[in-house]
Amino acid sequence: MTERVRILGLDPGLRNTGWGIITVEGTKLSYVACGVVTSDGDLDLALRLKQLHDRITEVIRAWAPDEVAVEETFVNKDAQATLKLGQARAMSLLVPALHGLSVAEYGANQVKKTVVGVGHAEKDQVQAMVKILLPKADFKKADAADALAIAIAHAHHRKARALAASLKVL
Amino acid sequence: MTERVRILGLDPGLRNTGWGIITVEGTKLSYVACGVVTSDGDLDLALRLKQLHDRITEVIRAWAPDEVAVEETFVNKDAQATLKLGQARAMSLLVPALHGLSVAEYGANQVKKTVVGVGHAEKDQVQAMVKILLPKADFKKADAADALAIAIAHAHHRKARALAASLKVL
Repeated sequence: MTERVRILGLDPGLRNTGWGIITVEGTKLSYVACGVVTSDGDLDLALRLKQLHDRITEVIRAWAPDEVAVEETFVNKDAQATLKLGQARAMSLLVPALHGLSVAEYGANQVKKTVVGVGHAEKDQVQAMVKILLPKADFKKADAADALAIAIAHAHHRKARALAASLKVL
Repeated sequence: MTERVRILGLDPGLRNTGWGIITVEGTKLSYVACGVVTSDGDLDLALRLKQLHDRITEVIRAWAPDEVAVEETFVNKDAQATLKLGQARAMSLLVPALHGLSVAEYGANQVKKTVVGVGHAEKDQVQAMVKILLPKADFKKADAADALAIAIAHAHHRKARALAASLKVL
């Protein structure tokens, strides 16, 4: 019997962190759930990070993923924005680790290349392909679709990653 | 009787996060403890963040501070370094928030101005003033001295901050 693995994809952001759950069984992908967790812009940063922490914890407890994949943050010239994103992204990395889950990181271009076939695809193309690969996916927000795309990328790359990790140990 | 408040200062970094505990009673400052928590550079980022999370949690449980102050991260032109720092800094903000502690943030120049008297003081000057203000302070590393400086800055500014916060509520 083929192993069935439940993957959580996370697209980090301080205001909106997208999340998406899929299962992979052999080459078959299935949609499970998706959504967006938010933090309240009126609060201090420490409390906003706590909100993201608490809400990502809820997602992990509710959907019990086996593995987690997180998008590498887009680094731009606005250092303050990069710092803010880094702080939000830390929640997407920390909370799975606190639950003993392994966290794979993928660059945005790697995600696009896996899902659409080219590294510089537009947002619309990514969403259209997510809809084709996961016909039942019901995403209201782009962040949730991006999170599903990250989960799909991990479904494709996880075996190669696991092999590479096992070779490193040898 | 004057209120006695125990302050934790944190100087965030992914490899080394400095921490320092002082008490303030009226205008009297006293040294309690200081040190550095580290993360293992060989591990994946998620696990490094978990190490910082777990070790800052230990400091808070061991020393039970009433209030926490964190240095604002120095943002530079190296976006990857800024991102890394942001992720580490998130642990210094999150863990106190998870313990219900308020977290004040101070810019590096504000800390130097409070402790040394000028905003562009050298590291050595900051350490020398920390030693004068807290004669019993026994820091082996600069990060621990910086964390004590942040705690001292908060001891000086906390009343003004509390007043400003209460005026905002009115």
